[in-house]
Amino acid sequence: MAREPVESHTMLQLRGLDRSNRPDWVVVEEPLEIRLDGEPLAVVMRTPGHDIELVVGFALTEGIVRSADHLGTVRHCAGDSGDSGENVVEIRLAPGVSYDRERLRRNFMASAACGLCGKASMEALATQARPVPDGPPVHRRVLEALPDRLRDAQKGFGRSGSLHAAALFDTGGSLLVCREDVGRHNAVDKAIGHSLLHDISLSRSVLLVSGRTSFEILQKSAVAGIPIVCAISGPTTLAIETARSFNITLVNFLRGHDMNIAAGQERLVES
Amino acid sequence: MAREPVESHTMLQLRGLDRSNRPDWVVVEEPLEIRLDGEPLAVVMRTPGHDIELVVGFALTEGIVRSADHLGTVRHCAGDSGDSGENVVEIRLAPGVSYDRERLRRNFMASAACGLCGKASMEALATQARPVPDGPPVHRRVLEALPDRLRDAQKGFGRSGSLHAAALFDTGGSLLVCREDVGRHNAVDKAIGHSLLHDISLSRSVLLVSGRTSFEILQKSAVAGIPIVCAISGPTTLAIETARSFNITLVNFLRGHDMNIAAGQERLVES
Repeated sequence: MAREPVESHTMLQLRGLDRSNRPDWVVVEEPLEIRLDGEPLAVVMRTPGHDIELVVGFALTEGIVRSADHLGTVRHCAGDSGDSGENVVEIRLAPGVSYDRERLRRNFMASAACGLCGKASMEALATQARPVPDGPPVHRRVLEALPDRLRDAQKGFGRSGSLHAAALFDTGGSLLVCREDVGRHNAVDKAIGHSLLHDISLSRSVLLVSGRTSFEILQKSAVAGIPIVCAISGPTTLAIETARSFNITLVNFLRGHDMNIAAGQERLVES
Repeated sequence: MAREPVESHTMLQLRGLDRSNRPDWVVVEEPLEIRLDGEPLAVVMRTPGHDIELVVGFALTEGIVRSADHLGTVRHCAGDSGDSGENVVEIRLAPGVSYDRERLRRNFMASAACGLCGKASMEALATQARPVPDGPPVHRRVLEALPDRLRDAQKGFGRSGSLHAAALFDTGGSLLVCREDVGRHNAVDKAIGHSLLHDISLSRSVLLVSGRTSFEILQKSAVAGIPIVCAISGPTTLAIETARSFNITLVNFLRGHDMNIAAGQERLVES
């Protein structure tokens, strides 16, 4: 059994003159090793739960595979030495599919060698992703309703105050999936992995994240082909540049009837 | 010249019925490549500014060097192809100092092979860091005053809402250094790097971060020998376990006269 995403831990709590040892909710953080065809690929610090979705999403958004068809099996390893193996997930690629670690490494180094900048990061991304096609349209009132729906869907956040959330909605505003994690990028990978495993179309979806949008979030969205990315907090410069380069609508500070739209405002329909 | 940490970008802003293109402050995010003796070592996404401090702190907290003496030069590269080289920093180790990439890689794999868990992460950390010695004592009223001092010291945060801050104080509450970055771990590395470069004793310092404390923050603090770590937001389970294993005082939700102390309460003096 995976640990719960939040746990109660006893600690000293000072509240003005009151001083007592009491339990408080704490978000669980544990390493997850991802193996590819028997070889260690990466270790991510994550909140346990939905590990398979996390690894499937990671495999797509980090360019290990290009579609769910490329994945053979993705499962927890039985431990080598009596442990439960719940912190190791192994990817086996589908027959005939290969992953050229060396080529990906060379691509990266080629970008870096000519003077690293935001442009180089986007050029590296362009080897993995094409700009998202125009459309679909989305109504402003649909976007305005999403933050409340995200809060309703979050389970752990209210208790610990420390979990990031990522949710996918359709363009009518219906929730497709909501996932939480100590790492913002993990929450996005879990939501994308869930969609891949359940054959949910990402090309007509809206991603909403509880925090900020950095390059990493836009990178993952571009590779997954998500046309509309929204956030409760702000963007970074590179997130804006990436959204514009990959024809993604980027909506930040989505709060009540207010929002900032730094890219792709064409998809927004006033209503 | 490095870019400013926040920039004004024009974007569509919807405020109820008002719809206009206006500038807003956006935090700058750019990749920084770190090279070690001519070889690429890592790429971090960071907010430009204090890059040398960032790389010096990174070199210490990631176990590349064990002290400032091990560093020869740390400087921006001249670009190979007409660019300014401001996104590439090269570390040259001091004469006689070497860094065994292969050994560090093997250490990590040995931990991972026997079933990865939080314990394995802490065992890997134990190869780099010893538990922090007992003391120094710190007065509760000193800690209570730190959040206001952090806010006063932050330059970019108020404008963009998206920069993490990390500040080091002495145990009397005097500010030693405050640094901001799009990445919380980068802000910590910059503050630690500044201290190394200016020969500031970390063994009697208090770290305050504007966000949460995850494993990564405690890992860096343990390697740097920082005895007291405080945060405005919450801890993760692995942060608590790491603080306890490395004899670090961990203070979370430090707000007004309230705080939670999950580890090392012995250092706290009521006053």
